[in-house]
Amino acid sequence: MTRDHYDLIIHNGTAVTVNEHLDIVEGALIGVQKGVIATVTSRPAGAALPDAAVVIDAGGGIIMPGLVNTHTHLPMTLFRGLADDLPLDVWLNEHMFPVESQFITPENVKWGTQLACLEMLLSGTTTCCGGYFHEESVAAAVTLAGLRAVLAQGVIDFPAPGVPDPALNVAHASAYVEQWLGREANITPSIFCHAPYTCSGETLVAAKTAAREKGVLFQIHVAETEPERLNSLKEHGLTPVQYLDGIGLLDENTLLVHAVWTDHEDIELMRTRKVKISHNVESNMKLAAGIAPVPDFIAAGIAVGLGTDGCASNNDLDLFAEMDAAAKIHKAVTRDPTTLDAATVLKMATRDGARAIGLGDVTGSLEPGKQADLIVVNTDRPHLVPMYEPHSHIVYTMRGADVNTVVVGGKILVKDRQPVTLDQEEIIARIADIADQIRKGRPK
Amino acid sequence: MTRDHYDLIIHNGTAVTVNEHLDIVEGALIGVQKGVIATVTSRPAGAALPDAAVVIDAGGGIIMPGLVNTHTHLPMTLFRGLADDLPLDVWLNEHMFPVESQFITPENVKWGTQLACLEMLLSGTTTCCGGYFHEESVAAAVTLAGLRAVLAQGVIDFPAPGVPDPALNVAHASAYVEQWLGREANITPSIFCHAPYTCSGETLVAAKTAAREKGVLFQIHVAETEPERLNSLKEHGLTPVQYLDGIGLLDENTLLVHAVWTDHEDIELMRTRKVKISHNVESNMKLAAGIAPVPDFIAAGIAVGLGTDGCASNNDLDLFAEMDAAAKIHKAVTRDPTTLDAATVLKMATRDGARAIGLGDVTGSLEPGKQADLIVVNTDRPHLVPMYEPHSHIVYTMRGADVNTVVVGGKILVKDRQPVTLDQEEIIARIADIADQIRKGRPK
Repeated sequence: MTRDHYDLIIHNGTAVTVNEHLDIVEGALIGVQKGVIATVTSRPAGAALPDAAVVIDAGGGIIMPGLVNTHTHLPMTLFRGLADDLPLDVWLNEHMFPVESQFITPENVKWGTQLACLEMLLSGTTTCCGGYFHEESVAAAVTLAGLRAVLAQGVIDFPAPGVPDPALNVAHASAYVEQWLGREANITPSIFCHAPYTCSGETLVAAKTAAREKGVLFQIHVAETEPERLNSLKEHGLTPVQYLDGIGLLDENTLLVHAVWTDHEDIELMRTRKVKISHNVESNMKLAAGIAPVPDFIAAGIAVGLGTDGCASNNDLDLFAEMDAAAKIHKAVTRDPTTLDAATVLKMATRDGARAIGLGDVTGSLEPGKQADLIVVNTDRPHLVPMYEPHSHIVYTMRGADVNTVVVGGKILVKDRQPVTLDQEEIIARIADIADQIRKGRPK
Repeated sequence: MTRDHYDLIIHNGTAVTVNEHLDIVEGALIGVQKGVIATVTSRPAGAALPDAAVVIDAGGGIIMPGLVNTHTHLPMTLFRGLADDLPLDVWLNEHMFPVESQFITPENVKWGTQLACLEMLLSGTTTCCGGYFHEESVAAAVTLAGLRAVLAQGVIDFPAPGVPDPALNVAHASAYVEQWLGREANITPSIFCHAPYTCSGETLVAAKTAAREKGVLFQIHVAETEPERLNSLKEHGLTPVQYLDGIGLLDENTLLVHAVWTDHEDIELMRTRKVKISHNVESNMKLAAGIAPVPDFIAAGIAVGLGTDGCASNNDLDLFAEMDAAAKIHKAVTRDPTTLDAATVLKMATRDGARAIGLGDVTGSLEPGKQADLIVVNTDRPHLVPMYEPHSHIVYTMRGADVNTVVVGGKILVKDRQPVTLDQEEIIARIADIADQIRKGRPK
């Protein structure tokens, strides 16, 4: 070990790198300089620690990349559990759209997003991707929290919070992107069209054109339910994926969210267009949308990440639970217990997720040159012993509540399970007030 | 409020009673006398607390019945994550049976069970049901921990740990039942035949006869996989359930575990025989066994409880996670998001589970006359706010790690997340030693 000086080192743990070879490094030493991982090595027993401004002792636990949530709607924490066990159209039209039009103000978005960031950080998520309205308020709150994020302004052909005139929806999103491009190191702006059935062809094309011009990710919910697929076939003579392709929306900077109702031709199309996919298995189960053919996506070489979806349809932002569900459900569906093994699922929640949202070179693994986005999990807990295989342990046994330390870009955001950047007490108090307003004022 | 004296009161929380009417009591006051719930009322604002030897302040959180795990193999915590992502037959024959024959000693069973009890208590389970070998060692460890349990000696027609001669398997189980019947208030002995395909008809009949004579629960894994069903049809011309019925095994004191591959005729048969069912959805998914037709069981009025199965096939004992999975998977399978709503699933994990294992009058709800088996969850946490509907919150949002206080039969077993009866440090250290032996000594 040379006498390098680091801004931060993390040592005394097993590093689950999720690099290309899925290397596991026992007795790991990770050195960070200027927010970037400089070295991932095994420290010889008894060797002195290198110089470092800050030292994190992993206490013999697991050191792993922070998790990447490829799809969520952060402020929807405000509606966690507000309307459950309902069909998607009833849930969306009779509950979500009405409460959103009434309660989604910049101020409420700010607090809902702070709550989401708190929950994500405390459950080991360091990067998230999603879209909503008043997205400038979302981006400001995420900046305060310190997470890495791809944050999109939502586009829909109805009057929406902050965008009363739908004719201006794409212009509004473009202005948001302009405003946030290059502004904060951790925030990448993006544009999110709600769905092919809530945006006209003109809107979709204009939004993708704007995203393309600015070089940002274009996101869209697509093929979530069977009725959506059937309606698309009826209306356009095309599957939802074919329809989007026909109007030129599919390329390597397009993230298709859900993609549940996709067939082999759709998959071949998605593969050749190099689109990315966000798989939201818990939301798809809870809303009874169906189960996306993820093993086929992966076999086709398409980058697939995991997403929690918004809190109103999950009802949490815990990617550990999402990994467990994803690993299990596809075994049940394919009737093959070797489907989506633990390492594959962990990759989806880290490096492949990062790739899916355009941050593959930035985050998602413990490798020199990537941002120091990592978490430490203390494994000295009853439900985490014994441990025979770390990848299995992470997917099938660990939960968000097991995360002790969270680092993003070399900055410690959670220490001993306490948030560093956010004021938990204040956030919970403000959320209580907003929830009271919602309880009293929501349409019955 | 009369000046009653209680041994224990729990107050300052929302009581989710899971009684027949699913009553929710705000500002609850629960009084316990001699380990039994004496009263569940709403305390008028400002009213003085009644006299009580011990007072638990729920801190404005949720007070609910402790969860009931209707199927597990406690000592299998020792094999948590030892062999994942494998087909059931490979997993069982090439991994589980060999390590069991080598490492399942009374001493290892004791520590594995203590670890299981620690994990269950810390995740809010107050009652469990299951079977294994060296069950006297299991029962002693559970007694020490203080949980309520139905514990069965396993019966299988192979040489098994502690039962080298399979000809003596039923006699061994009978002697165990004899030994533990009426011995400890919280322990109910039982007999567990492994499966119709690992026990002969003679063994099955002898075991059920012994269970019947002693008035204890008879348990059996049945119809877990499609090959099991097809083999049964081939060998007996009967489905597994029909086969068990044909030899007289089905009655109200029989618990069928899994029952995945059951058709409408099987369900009608189970209904008329009044058998009970343990649904182990995470294990069934992970081993790719399939998904049991639980909505049909419930529609037929059959008592269905939830189970985690052993730690080697789940890989945890967290019933909160099991509730979430059960609520979601059946929506996906039936393509109906109203299937198994939160309240129904919570009932499965509490009162219906208790009924399924013969303890319906004893535990599973907060009602006067039942044992004081309850848990307190602090809801003042980022992922638990806001809360609009407690049943939804419990099923879709809470996790085992959220449980603060656990009471069984009026005795506090977990206080502020610290175990009272078990020595966590010692258990984790002993498990580390045993896991080392397994790593070094297991057949490759």
